[in-house]
Amino acid sequence: MQTGILTRSEVARILTPAMAVKAVELAFTAHGMGQAEMPPKSYLTFPRGDMRSMPASLFGQGLQGAGIKCVTVHPENRSVGLPTVMAIVILINPENGTPLVVMDATHLTALRTGAAGALAAKLLAVPAARTAGFVGSGAQARAQLTCTMEVLRLEAVKIWQHARGSKSAEDFAHWAEEAFGLAASVHREVDEVTTGVDILVTTTPSREPIVRTVSPGTHINAIGADAKGKQEIGTDLVKKCTIIVDDWAQASHSGEINVPISEGAILKEDVHGQLGEIAAGKKPGRTGKGEITLFDSTGLAIQDVACALLVHKALGEMTTTQTLDFLA
Amino acid sequence: MQTGILTRSEVARILTPAMAVKAVELAFTAHGMGQAEMPPKSYLTFPRGDMRSMPASLFGQGLQGAGIKCVTVHPENRSVGLPTVMAIVILINPENGTPLVVMDATHLTALRTGAAGALAAKLLAVPAARTAGFVGSGAQARAQLTCTMEVLRLEAVKIWQHARGSKSAEDFAHWAEEAFGLAASVHREVDEVTTGVDILVTTTPSREPIVRTVSPGTHINAIGADAKGKQEIGTDLVKKCTIIVDDWAQASHSGEINVPISEGAILKEDVHGQLGEIAAGKKPGRTGKGEITLFDSTGLAIQDVACALLVHKALGEMTTTQTLDFLA
Repeated sequence: MQTGILTRSEVARILTPAMAVKAVELAFTAHGMGQAEMPPKSYLTFPRGDMRSMPASLFGQGLQGAGIKCVTVHPENRSVGLPTVMAIVILINPENGTPLVVMDATHLTALRTGAAGALAAKLLAVPAARTAGFVGSGAQARAQLTCTMEVLRLEAVKIWQHARGSKSAEDFAHWAEEAFGLAASVHREVDEVTTGVDILVTTTPSREPIVRTVSPGTHINAIGADAKGKQEIGTDLVKKCTIIVDDWAQASHSGEINVPISEGAILKEDVHGQLGEIAAGKKPGRTGKGEITLFDSTGLAIQDVACALLVHKALGEMTTTQTLDFLA
Repeated sequence: MQTGILTRSEVARILTPAMAVKAVELAFTAHGMGQAEMPPKSYLTFPRGDMRSMPASLFGQGLQGAGIKCVTVHPENRSVGLPTVMAIVILINPENGTPLVVMDATHLTALRTGAAGALAAKLLAVPAARTAGFVGSGAQARAQLTCTMEVLRLEAVKIWQHARGSKSAEDFAHWAEEAFGLAASVHREVDEVTTGVDILVTTTPSREPIVRTVSPGTHINAIGADAKGKQEIGTDLVKKCTIIVDDWAQASHSGEINVPISEGAILKEDVHGQLGEIAAGKKPGRTGKGEITLFDSTGLAIQDVACALLVHKALGEMTTTQTLDFLA
């Protein structure tokens, strides 16, 4: 019984943005159809970081598989030249429990997060969306744009970055021009970026709201908040939005809505639904041109397992990949 | 950054019974001292089996590490020539989150379960224990005896096996004679095996109590029950015992005591403590020669992580082992 073993670059060679977007759409649809099982993330906390265990299984939409992502987050790693986020996925065959593949999931994690934003934009943005604003311009901003270009025909992006990372805003702009032929501009005032765009993508680790105002009809992908106390979008603005979460339990605990929820500024009833319910056609998406929609993304284990499943499928008869018989 | 990758036989070559017993004693002591973190197991259920995610970290007793065991259980696998239980452990460095080693944990799981029984026998059996009864004579019975021989000077074993597996009882007896020079006898009446012994080890998957009576002074290692509804020891007998669990949450949910607890026949107050509290010296073990003690073992993630840590330590400069740079 051979188990595939894949490094980051091997996964990156196989998992294209298009494949990630497809995997994540199938995963959310399965989630909405009740064809997924996903126990809560569990955390181990360390002095300088943590480890998260994210198990999930999928049994619908052509996806049959289960697995777990083990992901560590150590913010201080940057200073010693190590990645701050490292992850490994174990994918198993639910029929008989055999391990199918063990793969690095660093690249996969970035891309499946971008793919969730792309899916939300596809389902919730105005159909003729042509412009996007980016608050935050790091690696995740690139993953968001890369995946969104798979589903929408964007023409222009506007970029704002906290002063400390202004160089990264210029880099992002050049890259967006080169990679996708987009008109890209860097702005000093955040409001210039958050208004007059069809889609707004926030990818900062902020603990103070940065975004105060958007134009009617905007779809917001709120990606950055991933822990208690983090918040990128002002509560007054959140209250005006049609709120869609990836998963109620995770989002209310650690997503964009965690602060407004904990303050009682918004209630569970104020949340329109989960992205999977919209993907599965169980709830409507956008209902009007002027509506402001907000997708609160925390990152789900089903996204990881779905991407790993498509990677495993694509492996097929590839003989260049390392395998190991763990039971030998 | 190289991550070690170990197959079952490589782990078996490194992880001796003595090393497993040492690892598990350190793990339980750390648990008792509050030097461990162990979120609840989480389950994914499949039509013919399940997958369990077992994360834990240890930070005391010389153990510094964290990880997760991903274990699948598929009872029908036997009919197609696959193992019913398969497991992989990912061990990480809690300092910076890097993956240290990914190892098969099939052998490790069997041995760490045997090691917990050995530790319980060391802490709870009469010091001059010389005889052991075995109800059930499969692979786990061998792991129990192997590890117990590391801590006690047994001289004789008595074996009972449900009629379906009577051949395995004879095999176990021969093996016990050959491997350890023990006097071994197979019995047809279960009471002949459960009485007149210092230690009783039950390793069956029974859902009906098998053990009804033991002699005063016996220590029982109840290993078999690992799911809701399973029970090897009669409730009337359990009520006479000083009950020690590996972990209250797991044991009350799926261990030997789960049925008596669910029936209200025993209460939380009737449980004397957790094995780690005794290992750490926070609670007394046996207090008299006539006392009947019962250890309810469900299997803890700390046992897996501790064994994996000692395996990783022992790897040291071994160059024969396969490694992979997952981040390459």
